[in-house]
Amino acid sequence: MRRILDDVYSPDDIKVLSYEEMDRLAFEIRDFIIKTVADTGGHLASNLGVVELTLALHYHLNSPQDKIIWDVGHQSYIHKIITGRKNEFKTIRQYEGLSGYPKRSESVHDIIETGHSSTSIGSALGLALARDHEQRKDRVYAVIGDGSLTAGMAFEALNHAGHLGRDMTVILNDNNMSISPNVGALSHYLSNIRIDPRLHKLKEDIEFIISRIPRIGSVMSRTIERVKDGLKYTVLTGILFEEMGFTYIGPLNGHNIEELLNNFKKADMIKGPVLIHVNTIKGKGYQPAENQPSKYHGVSPFKIGNGERKKERALPSYSEVFGRAMIKIGQLDNDLIGITAAMPEGTGLNIFKEKFSDRFYDVGIAEQHAVTLATGLARGGKKPVVAIYSSFLQRAYDQIIHDTCIQNLPVVFAIDRSGIVGNDGETHQGTFDISFLRPIPNLTLMAPKDENELQHMLYTAVNLDSPAAIRYPRGDIYGVKIDQDLNKLEVGKAEVVKEGKDILIIAIGSRVYPSLEAARQLAEQGIEAEVINARFIKPLDKDLLVAKIKKFKKVVTVEEQVLNGGFGTAVLELINKEQLEGISLKRLGLPDSFIPHGSQEMMRSLYGIDTSGIVDTVLEFSATDMGVAVWPRKNA
Amino acid sequence: MRRILDDVYSPDDIKVLSYEEMDRLAFEIRDFIIKTVADTGGHLASNLGVVELTLALHYHLNSPQDKIIWDVGHQSYIHKIITGRKNEFKTIRQYEGLSGYPKRSESVHDIIETGHSSTSIGSALGLALARDHEQRKDRVYAVIGDGSLTAGMAFEALNHAGHLGRDMTVILNDNNMSISPNVGALSHYLSNIRIDPRLHKLKEDIEFIISRIPRIGSVMSRTIERVKDGLKYTVLTGILFEEMGFTYIGPLNGHNIEELLNNFKKADMIKGPVLIHVNTIKGKGYQPAENQPSKYHGVSPFKIGNGERKKERALPSYSEVFGRAMIKIGQLDNDLIGITAAMPEGTGLNIFKEKFSDRFYDVGIAEQHAVTLATGLARGGKKPVVAIYSSFLQRAYDQIIHDTCIQNLPVVFAIDRSGIVGNDGETHQGTFDISFLRPIPNLTLMAPKDENELQHMLYTAVNLDSPAAIRYPRGDIYGVKIDQDLNKLEVGKAEVVKEGKDILIIAIGSRVYPSLEAARQLAEQGIEAEVINARFIKPLDKDLLVAKIKKFKKVVTVEEQVLNGGFGTAVLELINKEQLEGISLKRLGLPDSFIPHGSQEMMRSLYGIDTSGIVDTVLEFSATDMGVAVWPRKNA
Repeated sequence: MRRILDDVYSPDDIKVLSYEEMDRLAFEIRDFIIKTVADTGGHLASNLGVVELTLALHYHLNSPQDKIIWDVGHQSYIHKIITGRKNEFKTIRQYEGLSGYPKRSESVHDIIETGHSSTSIGSALGLALARDHEQRKDRVYAVIGDGSLTAGMAFEALNHAGHLGRDMTVILNDNNMSISPNVGALSHYLSNIRIDPRLHKLKEDIEFIISRIPRIGSVMSRTIERVKDGLKYTVLTGILFEEMGFTYIGPLNGHNIEELLNNFKKADMIKGPVLIHVNTIKGKGYQPAENQPSKYHGVSPFKIGNGERKKERALPSYSEVFGRAMIKIGQLDNDLIGITAAMPEGTGLNIFKEKFSDRFYDVGIAEQHAVTLATGLARGGKKPVVAIYSSFLQRAYDQIIHDTCIQNLPVVFAIDRSGIVGNDGETHQGTFDISFLRPIPNLTLMAPKDENELQHMLYTAVNLDSPAAIRYPRGDIYGVKIDQDLNKLEVGKAEVVKEGKDILIIAIGSRVYPSLEAARQLAEQGIEAEVINARFIKPLDKDLLVAKIKKFKKVVTVEEQVLNGGFGTAVLELINKEQLEGISLKRLGLPDSFIPHGSQEMMRSLYGIDTSGIVDTVLEFSATDMGVAVWPRKNA
Repeated sequence: MRRILDDVYSPDDIKVLSYEEMDRLAFEIRDFIIKTVADTGGHLASNLGVVELTLALHYHLNSPQDKIIWDVGHQSYIHKIITGRKNEFKTIRQYEGLSGYPKRSESVHDIIETGHSSTSIGSALGLALARDHEQRKDRVYAVIGDGSLTAGMAFEALNHAGHLGRDMTVILNDNNMSISPNVGALSHYLSNIRIDPRLHKLKEDIEFIISRIPRIGSVMSRTIERVKDGLKYTVLTGILFEEMGFTYIGPLNGHNIEELLNNFKKADMIKGPVLIHVNTIKGKGYQPAENQPSKYHGVSPFKIGNGERKKERALPSYSEVFGRAMIKIGQLDNDLIGITAAMPEGTGLNIFKEKFSDRFYDVGIAEQHAVTLATGLARGGKKPVVAIYSSFLQRAYDQIIHDTCIQNLPVVFAIDRSGIVGNDGETHQGTFDISFLRPIPNLTLMAPKDENELQHMLYTAVNLDSPAAIRYPRGDIYGVKIDQDLNKLEVGKAEVVKEGKDILIIAIGSRVYPSLEAARQLAEQGIEAEVINARFIKPLDKDLLVAKIKKFKKVVTVEEQVLNGGFGTAVLELINKEQLEGISLKRLGLPDSFIPHGSQEMMRSLYGIDTSGIVDTVLEFSATDMGVAVWPRKNA
């Protein structure tokens, strides 16, 4: 049977459908997404939750004249499918395929690019202001999850939008989750609206009582008016949002297209900002995802029948090793505290939470607060470890400087997903952290070559009594032996991992093993490279590095980070500061451009920082008398 | 007559006073602060507003066992005076004198160091959690202004504190101002609580009606209970905070010590987090400051009689020139938009606001939102200029990367107070911006040598059609001729400002004129230095710099920024990338430590980046055959 979806090439094709047809289309789209993502991997549960909402939005609005802003953007698959990208959908998140997030280069319907959460209200307000300056009448709709609302910048934008009173609509897509279940008073508040039958009843009760009050006596009529004013401030009317200057509509059933459309019409009639509270079920329509929405938030290819991964992972991730190391240290040290910003599973802290629930804090999507809270805990004598992905740590940059490092307090930053993140692409790349952390005084910055070193580094950092950061990559570990006992590494000491005589390779973090393998391959071609695992980006091992650099003269640095201000630059600054003469330095790393999506392996290869790239660089370098090329491969 | 203040050496000396004596002490402290700050300059109005509040806090609490956290910290003068620093108070904000902010090295009573706003609730929550982990019973009080509440991180912390339900007290010091008058829906909400007599009356009305309702009929009693539950959610009870999980007390008269103390006692009896809403008058007790609290927020030495500056400024500030340039461009270009985060006067945008009120947005203390809003405006075809101080821009780091630069949208960042800020010290130094902005793809980064170049750079940036940042210093301009017409500078082109033959000085921004003066003095000693004004940090003028570096071989870079990853490093990376051989490079800049408070002149001299420091460096450098010292002066 021909599907309705087969005839949908643009939002116009939605507008001719009946409610029943849209429901059928929703079913077909769920089927299409489940089948595709089962093959490709990607964001599943969040997309299944917004099928009807997306159809209703495109039915109601005239995109792209009317603007739809997808907060965080991982729920934009349906939007992509019905705005002409159905046929390319199978390429999602793959190199040169569709992005997993809104991308302006893909479609005129992708208004604002997102990837990090909580930006949509601010972006939408900016668009609404621009529209008003141009005296146009476009409608601007932001779609934001309840989890994203916990981030301060969403509040800042609500506060400002409420103040300005411009026409715009915020759809609160409330699935009672961020990626993991929500925390915070706000979440509790939304739950009350959503589920408390007592409160649903209260509205009728209040109206009944008000209807009876006038009988008490006419002298009270003015008083009653005042009380009515007061009553509008009850929880039922979404008071938090009403107080912020928004007109509140809801809560609505986000899977009922007719109900959504009727209320969108209502919202368009209202002057000033409107918040429409929509309840959706994350994972809707696919039982495994409905049951475990966190697990099916972002998935690898899976079997549709039972939801199991198609390929079981051979090795645990760095995040899991980090979580286990936290438990190990937590058993030795009662002062250890684990903090996450809405990512207990993603960071691996979930197992620490199970073991030490009283020493674990999930602050919600609130990286700024995570760092300042940790600083308070450190001031109170605790040893907090804040686990945040590299690209999200950018949200807490001022707090790292102003709260942690100026006070020189012992907060540990466990920076997961440093370097190339793979299929999430530009918005999620952890390729700037060395550059932005290295200039901060008092901060020790390190990166482990493997998972065993990660646990020792964590132990070292926790016992440092000053701020420390550890950057480690997304993905699988190497599978090396994990020492039972934890060692404190000597701060600022590197290690020679392979001796050589022809050329010096100084590698950091994820690039140490590829450098070792490169050295092995080079040896087959007669070049004996010495390989140093730098371990510390700050402080550098000045004594060892200076001695080795002087000895070898030809030096290659390798890092998984942008070159501007990165690890190689730290070595270059050392050479400069120590007045080392006659040195040739090649810095291998990432160029001055945003790295698109594609598998980690592919991108590392493409940018020449994998084993083969290192081999090529060293061969080319060895062949020249002197050379300081920064970037020998394409995409320079 | 002997003052009570003369006998106050510690908080214990407050605890023995009667209410009347405390009122007299408050009067004496105001007198003492006004007289001192009239001589030294400093934060005036905010401190005059919290005299009684500070006395009441120290009377009620046992500091330092009980913890008082001063948000933003510029209102901690009274706290300093009564915790043993009365005699040093005259040294406030001067080099090696007292800091203008809480500083742990000064006193055990300074619990958390602050300087940026809105951190206190998160820090206090961290301290409360640490206390609970240790099963101690200390009280933790955070004092936060209403302006500071507009920042997202304060909301994040409220949300988390409300969720956790630990004992802690937040004093909302509501003076209806941040530094400038507040904006935002929240401010409107607080105003309602504070001033609306209708709402004050409503509470009584509601209670009256409830008292009458039971007469209607007994069948309704359960309903009435429900309604009473609903009524507690009225605006009168500080519902916004109650919704966030706080018990709300207030609003109180913040100048009535007895009223404050009674309510502090009440707060201590309440389980879980409490918010005490205290109304204060910014500038209280000094008429000029009460009348113009923004003007008297931070002051230069002034005459007490009329509040006028003791020394009229000979020259306008960079901020004023920026504001005038904004008007000039705004007259030419209807798309220009000015955005500030609660600093219309500080950034100089106040005059733009007066001229183009419809193209000016003050978002409150909300740097993250400022940048994302600007990005939305840029997406909508406008040309937004976001003026933010360098150290506060750290709050918007992720938004610059994720919102502006990934989308490559034409937002201009006007970075005021870049470099050494002087008396505000560590928390306010603008000494990291080159390092953290340079790694971001798509961003053009520049710094003008003087105010005339600033206006041309702003014009250039506004017309660039991609993200651009301009960093310029705090304080006085040089007084050069301001061109009537605006010119677009060629992007990535430097200028030779003085020719020479012996040595090359490449200076950026504020260091160009001191380098020129150094070159003049060096010429008297027979050394002909060539001076380049780099103008662009990114992209560098590769062609000119490479040619000149090759020619001179001896090169000094000069910048007002930390050396790690700074401008000199950009030049060093260029030398490396271009494989220039036999070059000696000295990078002059700031060391890897937080720069303390002291006048800009003094600190520039101390760190060797003033004219005399440049001269000394060049002389030393010229005398050696080869040298790449980074830091020739003390404090290295």
